[in-house]
Amino acid sequence: MDQIENLTSSIRDFAKNRDWEKFHTPKNLAMAIAGEAGELAAEFQWLTPEGSNSDQLSDEKLKDIRLEIADVQIYLFRLADVLGVNVAQAVLEKMEINEGRF
Amino acid sequence: MDQIENLTSSIRDFAKNRDWEKFHTPKNLAMAIAGEAGELAAEFQWLTPEGSNSDQLSDEKLKDIRLEIADVQIYLFRLADVLGVNVAQAVLEKMEINEGRF
Amino acid sequence: MDQIENLTSSIRDFAKNRDWEKFHTPKNLAMAIAGEAGELAAEFQWLTPEGSNSDQLSDEKLKDIRLEIADVQIYLFRLADVLGVNVAQAVLEKMEINEGRF
Amino acid sequence: MDQIENLTSSIRDFAKNRDWEKFHTPKNLAMAIAGEAGELAAEFQWLTPEGSNSDQLSDEKLKDIRLEIADVQIYLFRLADVLGVNVAQAVLEKMEINEGRF
Repeated sequence: MDQIENLTSSIRDFAKNRDWEKFHTPKNLAMAIAGEAGELAAEFQWLTPEGSNSDQLSDEKLKDIRLEIADVQIYLFRLADVLGVNVAQAVLEKMEINEGRF
Repeated sequence: MDQIENLTSSIRDFAKNRDWEKFHTPKNLAMAIAGEAGELAAEFQWLTPEGSNSDQLSDEKLKDIRLEIADVQIYLFRLADVLGVNVAQAVLEKMEINEGRF
Repeated sequence: MDQIENLTSSIRDFAKNRDWEKFHTPKNLAMAIAGEAGELAAEFQWLTPEGSNSDQLSDEKLKDIRLEIADVQIYLFRLADVLGVNVAQAVLEKMEINEGRF
Repeated sequence: MDQIENLTSSIRDFAKNRDWEKFHTPKNLAMAIAGEAGELAAEFQWLTPEGSNSDQLSDEKLKDIRLEIADVQIYLFRLADVLGVNVAQAVLEKMEINEGRF
């Protein structure tokens, strides 16, 4: 199992053990991603672009941001999982499209 | 190099080759994630929860969703990269916190 | 009828005339707001804070932003409508809470 | 002054009195809208479409949603204000465009 499959499998087990599978429809997970992405954006909203660099952030702020990144990532892996999407392949495919565009 | 580092490295090179590093401040990338998460949510907004399952989606719709997932993922790996955050470790740490909470 | 009720009423009629009321559950409308807010954020993602000021934006860009603001506003009035929330009163109440906090 | 101008004027004074004008660039406000829209979406993420209707929501939940709607609205009026956009006119213009499309 590769690294992303591994993480995805842990997230799947976490949901299964709490009987949360019924809540994890693609629609609900896409909504959860939007919610977490909003919280991640909120961490940066009053910072200047320069002030958002890691060497300008306090340890506490960086820790909060790190956990918000994790929240988005967990729901993104979970959404891909319930849809049967291979995230790594999708990223590579999208980058090839972008290569052609830019 | 593990799988996520590998993808992150390709994304970094893509940005570097286009001289986009100056645009990729953490603030801007967090904003891009919110934008892409909004587009991903929009794919599902008028579907019923049941209708959002992969066996109910047309091939074309699923393909669109797959590329929207990739867009969020690319910017999320990129944000973690510029902040020096290890996404896999952050996910595992957040899941441990969640284990304690739920 | 006050100005916001007036706009809300036009939006309600628009939905009714297209038989879209069944799609306009609060959940779906909240998702649509997140989607439109993401598109609005995307308009600004690569701009500097200074470059986002109206005197720095092209007429075309400002027109696009204006219509994205309208999209968020239309769904926000519609959500408030289906929930029976008076937006103006909610704004005043929230500002009073903020007065106490800041 | 009409109702929306009135609310916008109160929001402007609130920001001015706290010397927050320097933070209220269009870019930052668009980010704040995305953040608040994410929080609003989060209120609905695990509900069924039917369960999101106002008669199914607890008084407490509806109160939380009401204040999240207010948060999005406050930043949306503020963004329109700093950009010199008339929200009511923008809504009417967008609805005319939509009339032609649907």
